Amino acid sequence: MSDHIVDWKQLRDYCKDIFVALHVPPDEAYIIADCLVDADLCGVESHGVSRMAIYTKRLQAGVVNTAMQVKIEREYPAGAAINGCNSMGMVVGKYAMERCIEKAHENASCFITVNNSNHYGMASYFVRMAAEAGMVGFSATNAPPNIAPWGSSKAYFGTNPVAIAVPTSSDPVVLDMASSVVAMGKVILAAKLGKTIPEGWVLTQDGRPTTDPEEGMKGTVLPIGGPKGYGIALFVDVLCGILSGAQFGPYLNNMWNDFVNPQNVGHVFVAIDISKYTDISSFKERMSQMILDIKSLPKKHGITELFVPGEIEERKKRNQKEQGVILPAVLYTELKALGEKFGVAINF
Amino acid sequence: MSDHIVDWKQLRDYCKDIFVALHVPPDEAYIIADCLVDADLCGVESHGVSRMAIYTKRLQAGVVNTAMQVKIEREYPAGAAINGCNSMGMVVGKYAMERCIEKAHENASCFITVNNSNHYGMASYFVRMAAEAGMVGFSATNAPPNIAPWGSSKAYFGTNPVAIAVPTSSDPVVLDMASSVVAMGKVILAAKLGKTIPEGWVLTQDGRPTTDPEEGMKGTVLPIGGPKGYGIALFVDVLCGILSGAQFGPYLNNMWNDFVNPQNVGHVFVAIDISKYTDISSFKERMSQMILDIKSLPKKHGITELFVPGEIEERKKRNQKEQGVILPAVLYTELKALGEKFGVAINF
Repeated sequence: MSDHIVDWKQLRDYCKDIFVALHVPPDEAYIIADCLVDADLCGVESHGVSRMAIYTKRLQAGVVNTAMQVKIEREYPAGAAINGCNSMGMVVGKYAMERCIEKAHENASCFITVNNSNHYGMASYFVRMAAEAGMVGFSATNAPPNIAPWGSSKAYFGTNPVAIAVPTSSDPVVLDMASSVVAMGKVILAAKLGKTIPEGWVLTQDGRPTTDPEEGMKGTVLPIGGPKGYGIALFVDVLCGILSGAQFGPYLNNMWNDFVNPQNVGHVFVAIDISKYTDISSFKERMSQMILDIKSLPKKHGITELFVPGEIEERKKRNQKEQGVILPAVLYTELKALGEKFGVAINF
Repeated sequence: MSDHIVDWKQLRDYCKDIFVALHVPPDEAYIIADCLVDADLCGVESHGVSRMAIYTKRLQAGVVNTAMQVKIEREYPAGAAINGCNSMGMVVGKYAMERCIEKAHENASCFITVNNSNHYGMASYFVRMAAEAGMVGFSATNAPPNIAPWGSSKAYFGTNPVAIAVPTSSDPVVLDMASSVVAMGKVILAAKLGKTIPEGWVLTQDGRPTTDPEEGMKGTVLPIGGPKGYGIALFVDVLCGILSGAQFGPYLNNMWNDFVNPQNVGHVFVAIDISKYTDISSFKERMSQMILDIKSLPKKHGITELFVPGEIEERKKRNQKEQGVILPAVLYTELKALGEKFGVAINF
C-alpha cells in the first residue's frame, strides 16, 4: 500500500469531527485536532494523528474528561497552580499558557504549574504561542517511566521533554527535545509501522542494546549525554510532578494500557515578556544577526546547510501545507476505521 | 611533587586576602573566594582556585572593576534587567539571585537578566542560594565560543552551562551542566596539569578528534546529544546574551587573552517560591520518596551505588571540609607565587 497525501485542513476537520462525535465541545475538539495535525505538519509524526486511536479510546473509556474543567488552586502576580481536573492535555495546556502570557504581560514573567492532566501532545505547540505574543515561551511535561537513572537498568523517569521558543523577524526559533536520545513516541511509531530502529536509541528490559522497537518499548530509552540527560529528566519531573502536585516517576499511570485510572500528568509553563527586558526590535535584529552568522559558518564535509532549532520543522510545515500531509497507508486505514466507528465520513 | 592538603577555610581566607590586596572590598573578596573554594570542595576544580591566576591578572589589568557597581535598568514585580557595570561575575551573580529570591517571595516567581558582567564561576553556587531559601533556583550564563553549531566545524557558542537546584529534607538536589560533553574548564585544567583528555570530548580546529587538551582549546568541545546540546547552547545565549543586552556568540570577549576589552558576559537567574505552589513539607516528603526510590533501583553490573544530581559533589564537599582540600603541587606553587606577588603570606 502506498502513502496517502491529504490536505491538512481536511485532516484537521476530520479529526475534530471525530472528537465532537465523542462529545468533546467543538472549540476544544479543534484545539486537540490542530495540535495533532500541527505535529504531522512539522514532521513530528510520533505526536500527530497517529495518536487519534489512543486518545479516542481513552475518551470513550471515560478515563479522560470530554469537556475541559480546570480549577486555579492558587494565583499570584507571577504564578498559578492549576488543577487540570483530568481534562485533555492540549486543552489544559493552551489554557495554562494563555494565563501565563497574560501574567507575564503584566509583571514581566510568569511560572505556572498544572497537575491532574493528561498527555498534552507536542510541547512546542504551547511555547510557540508565547513566541507569537512576543515572549520567550518555555514548557515541560512529565510522562510515564522510560528512562533509567544513570547506572540503573530500570526505567523511572519519562522521556520528559522541554521546549523553548523565541520570536524573530520571521519564523520563531523553537527547541523541543526529549531528555532521551529519541522520544518513546518514535519507538512506538516504528513498532506500529513495522520498522527497525537504530542502535543507541533503546536498551531491552535487561539492559542490552536492540534495534527491535517492541523490545525497546518494554525496556528503556537512553538519556542524552548520559548523567546529564538523566538530570534533565529528573528535574522536569521535580517541577511537573512533585512541585505541581501531580504524580511523578513510576506513579504516573500509563496512557497505553490503563483505561481505569486517570494519568495525573503534570506540566509547567513559563512566559517572559521580551519587551520588559529589552527593546523588542533590537531583540529581533540581534536574533537575525545570530541566525545569519550561523548559516554562514563553514560546513563539515557532506553538510549542505546549517539549521537553527525548529527551522527544519517550519520548512516541512510550509511544504506540507502546500503539498499535503503524507500519511502512511497503515495510518490512513486506522483513521478511516476510527471515522467509521464514530460515524464520521472520510472525504480524502 | 606531591599534592598539598589544605584547610578549606585557610584557603578561602588566603584567596580573599589576595583579592583585598587588589583593592576588592572585603565583603566582595569573600564572595569571590567562597565561590572558588566551594567549587574545589565540590570537586569542580576547573572552576576553583585554579582561576585565581586569571582573575587577579584581569583585576590588575583593570579590565574588570574591583568594586561592584550595578544598575537596575528595569524593574517589575517578577523581573529585572540588571546592568553588571563590568563588576566581578560572582559578586553580581549573588546580588542578582538575592533580588530574584526577594521578588519570588512576593510574587511566586521571578526572572532576572544581567548584562555587562564577567565569568561568574560555578553556576550551582547561585542556584543553591535559592534552594536554601526554599525555592527552585535556576541560572545560566553565556561564555566565549567553544561549541560549533551542529554540522559546522567552527565554534560559535560557549559551553553555556545551566544549573538548577531544589531543597530537600537534607542536601539540595543540584544539576549544573555545560551544554557540552565537558566544560572547557576541564580541558584547560588538563592542559595546565599536562594531562591528556579522553576522546569524544573535543575536536581540533579542523574537526578531527584529539586527546591533546592544547589542541582542543584551539578547536571545539562536542555538544551533548548532538543537535540537542547545540540547541541548549543557542537558547542559553539567546537569554543571557541577546535578551539581557550583553554580547553573544563570537562577540563575547575572551577572558584568557583580551585584557583591554571587558567581556560583557550575560547571565539569567530564576527563583520559584515552592510554598506558593504546594506545601513545602509535602514537597520535601515527595523529594525524599523520589530519592529513596532511585537509590533502591536495580544497579547495572559494576555499579555499586546510584546517585541523584549533586550528591557526589555534596559528599566530596563534606569529605574535603573534614579532611582538607587536595591541591595539585603545580596549583599550590601558582597560588603561593600569587601571594608573593601581592604581598600575602601563605600559611598552609
